[in-house]
Amino acid sequence: MKPNLPSKPTIAISIGDLNGVGIELALLNHEKIKKWANPLYCINASLLQQAANLLNVKIPHDFKLHETQGIFRVRPSKVCAKSGEYSFNSFLDAIKLTQEKKAKAVVTLPINKESWSKANIKYKGHTELLREYFKKDAIMMLGCKEMFVALFTEHTALKNVPKLVKTEKLITFLLDFYSCVKPKKTVAVLGLNPHASDNGVLGNEEKKIKKAIKAVNAKLNKEIFTQPLVPDTAFTPHSRKNYKYFIAMYHDQGLIPLKTIYFEESINISLNLPIIRTSVDHGTAFDIAYKHKAHAKSYLNAVKEAVKLAKNR
Amino acid sequence: MKPNLPSKPTIAISIGDLNGVGIELALLNHEKIKKWANPLYCINASLLQQAANLLNVKIPHDFKLHETQGIFRVRPSKVCAKSGEYSFNSFLDAIKLTQEKKAKAVVTLPINKESWSKANIKYKGHTELLREYFKKDAIMMLGCKEMFVALFTEHTALKNVPKLVKTEKLITFLLDFYSCVKPKKTVAVLGLNPHASDNGVLGNEEKKIKKAIKAVNAKLNKEIFTQPLVPDTAFTPHSRKNYKYFIAMYHDQGLIPLKTIYFEESINISLNLPIIRTSVDHGTAFDIAYKHKAHAKSYLNAVKEAVKLAKNR
Repeated sequence: MKPNLPSKPTIAISIGDLNGVGIELALLNHEKIKKWANPLYCINASLLQQAANLLNVKIPHDFKLHETQGIFRVRPSKVCAKSGEYSFNSFLDAIKLTQEKKAKAVVTLPINKESWSKANIKYKGHTELLREYFKKDAIMMLGCKEMFVALFTEHTALKNVPKLVKTEKLITFLLDFYSCVKPKKTVAVLGLNPHASDNGVLGNEEKKIKKAIKAVNAKLNKEIFTQPLVPDTAFTPHSRKNYKYFIAMYHDQGLIPLKTIYFEESINISLNLPIIRTSVDHGTAFDIAYKHKAHAKSYLNAVKEAVKLAKNR
Repeated sequence: MKPNLPSKPTIAISIGDLNGVGIELALLNHEKIKKWANPLYCINASLLQQAANLLNVKIPHDFKLHETQGIFRVRPSKVCAKSGEYSFNSFLDAIKLTQEKKAKAVVTLPINKESWSKANIKYKGHTELLREYFKKDAIMMLGCKEMFVALFTEHTALKNVPKLVKTEKLITFLLDFYSCVKPKKTVAVLGLNPHASDNGVLGNEEKKIKKAIKAVNAKLNKEIFTQPLVPDTAFTPHSRKNYKYFIAMYHDQGLIPLKTIYFEESINISLNLPIIRTSVDHGTAFDIAYKHKAHAKSYLNAVKEAVKLAKNR
């Protein structure tokens, strides 16, 4: 007989950069998400009170805290080392809660990469940190039920992308992706260059990509990954009918088309890790922080997906 | 009094790669386009007959030819040096007709870049050729009435793009763009790197882009060009409401979002040249060549736009 588990999993909420839209999303959507999950917010009471005052909202009576240490003045929309550091600590707490089985999953609100940099945090984002923390090649996948994009390279200056396209690394990536997602349909793999290089006329990285695809399809004994597709036609309405999952060679190659059509609803999922982690797919949105303007769809979907993954694990 | 001009301008049609979908578009849409234009097709009777036989269609009685010299066997969907060379010659003829005032504009059907390469043609595409032919910095702009994207770099391997982002070159580009398009609303300029580099954390080319924008806005005495936008949020539905014209730093940055939403209707316009030239925005589509499957919207829009520009000049 199945044990009588509580139906609502505890989800650790990494509160994100307090100068951005994250805390507003957490406070204003608590009533909604508590229907599916027991959220445990990684923020201390003093900072929470500052944010609630700035937003002019009441803190819900059942807004359960894991008190991440730290104190500073919340300054809406400002890049700030202290705020960067705090968002980092909140994330670490959320990870630990999940490792210690005090939570079933982590949901992250957005951090500011510049604030992390100012705080001398050596990671460029959540996913890089998770990768080092767990010594596992986490895979960053973004999307919604219509379409997901997994990124082979992530927060990298564009000039560094082409040299990172290597056959062996891509083989590992594709095999990891396959074992996490277990795709039923063919998965689209993009070329790197315009026109997927037109057979070598515009760059040559497609040769390495083809090699990797060939090796992986042979190993899995099925043609699950496509040949490198021409990037600018891979996302046409007609092409999208054929694929749910896309492997992008770089950040904007995958995220431009995703956000062009599914901006509000998309989320970020970290694959290939010992813990479950989902996230909103947007940034701190300093332009609208503390203005009660942030759209909640991505946050709500991130919590929903975390709950779904927690129940399936 | 206005002179009594014929209302239908003569448009020279560069026939494109005969192994691809171009000739099919020309033959099947002649009845439509002749309502707006007097098309003059740059192809000889023998090759036209081969294509018509393969398509199993009759050649319209008023399908007027400018007999571009050359003979070879049309082989649907094949990369082929001879076919590449012929498409090149057809294009040159169409340009000359326009220069000699025998046509008001050129409309190009798609060539195959690999076939051009096999034919030892040193240009990677139409726009590069036009640029050298006229010794003018032609600007490649693609889109439809909802949204246009001008490309600062074009058919370039991705690894070569970052070093091409230079302040002086971008200043010239933006000024040329401005004088051709005369935009009434703010024009979106994209950053190069993910997150537009997050203030230098992910690359530094945005500094050069900012310098160019500052210089151009100062010279024009208005804030017509935006600061470098974060590429993956510049095309969200919300952001697109603010702009009709986007300046992309590289091919796929601009063409992925355009083709994701406006694939069939988009066209290609060459700005900053002494002649008018528009084009379909798709390739030879070898996968559907000679199958009566090619969508005509882009071709029809390209002819319409050429007619409009010809009447306004």
